This record gives sequence, C-alpha cells and structure tokens, in this order.
Amino acid sequence: MSNAVEAPKLDVVAPCCPPLTERPLTADEAERTARMFKALGDPVRLRLFSLVASHEGGEACVCDISDVGVSQPTVSHHLKKLKEAGLLTSERRGTWVYYRVEPSVVTALGQMLGR
Amino acid sequence: MSNAVEAPKLDVVAPCCPPLTERPLTADEAERTARMFKALGDPVRLRLFSLVASHEGGEACVCDISDVGVSQPTVSHHLKKLKEAGLLTSERRGTWVYYRVEPSVVTALGQMLGR
Repeated sequence: MSNAVEAPKLDVVAPCCPPLTERPLTADEAERTARMFKALGDPVRLRLFSLVASHEGGEACVCDISDVGVSQPTVSHHLKKLKEAGLLTSERRGTWVYYRVEPSVVTALGQMLGR
Repeated sequence: MSNAVEAPKLDVVAPCCPPLTERPLTADEAERTARMFKALGDPVRLRLFSLVASHEGGEACVCDISDVGVSQPTVSHHLKKLKEAGLLTSERRGTWVYYRVEPSVVTALGQMLGR
C-alpha cells in the first residue's frame, strides 16, 4: 500500500551542490543546476523574480505586476518558467495565483556562488 | 591628454545589484546581470566554470580539461563565453590561455541570491 518516496518533487529541482570552488560539478549536478541559472538568464524573468522576491509579504501575483513592459500573459508565462525551474512556488487563492520565492533553492544557489 | 575613464571594462559586466529581496531590479540592472546567469545556464559551461573555480591555484587552461565530454575547441568556445560574460578573466602564458574566476563578480552574484 505504501511505496512512499520522500519529497520527490523538490528533489528533482533542488540544487545539490557544494560551493563551486570546492570540486568540479558532475554532469548530472550541472544539468540540474544550469536549469535554474538559465531561468534567471533572461532579463525580464530576472526582473520578475526580483519583483516577487522583494514584494511585500514575499509573494506576488500577476495582478501586482504592471511595470515591466510586457503583457500580462507574458508575465504569467515567465512566472511559470521560474516555477518549473524550481525557483518559485505558487498557490491559487480566488482569482489569482500567488508566487513566492523558494528560499532553500535560492539560498543554495547563492552558496554555490558565494565563496 | 588624459580623458581617463575609470575601469570601463569591468563596469560593463560587473553586477550592480542589491539582494533580490531588497527591491526590484531596474531593466538596466536586469539586463546586465541576466547575461551572467545566462552564461551559467548551460550545463557544459557551468561544469567548466566549476572546473576552473575548483582547480589547483584557482586557474585552469584548456590543457587541464579533458573529461567533460566535449572537444577542446568546444571547451575553448565555452570558456570564451564565460569570459565575455565577465565571470572569468584570462591570461596567455606561453602556448596556453589560463582562465581564472573573477571573484568580485561571482561573490556579488552570490550575494544577490543569498538572502
């Protein structure tokens, strides 16, 4: 009855890796982590990510975002990409989907780079 | 005679920006910084970057890199891309170009993500 595997979803996207100065990444580690950097490698997406990260209460919906020079559907598309990369989580409340930064993942990325 | 502009080269690529939780990035800041994340957003490049970062003495040349599953010209190409993004510096010594991580830039990226 119970073939429970622990936390499968986050394991897929969570970065894995020691500081980059410690040892070379394996091909598999690089594959997983590059996906996140790639998601941040688009100026509009990076800006949206910083908007969510710095928004009051640490979360934002499309309804909060109006000044990045792209249409609302494009904003939605980019937020979904950031979510797929494991950088944001989302929760629907009423009409809107609220996005929040996934702190453990972002901190891990920062630690990879930070020393 | 002296119209010296200070440190123009590094200013172009150096990240500029506060922690992402502090305030949204401007379009210009996002443009500059996304370029670096994009360079790290390719698995082979990210792996090469970690190879250079963790190599003895903090530097490596193409001659030090043999186990990433791509040809030497491809390695050279990716190292050049990382340099163009401001993440590596290079110095020719004899036959080889040695690459080194640009620590201030990498630390700044880490700080953007780290909190």
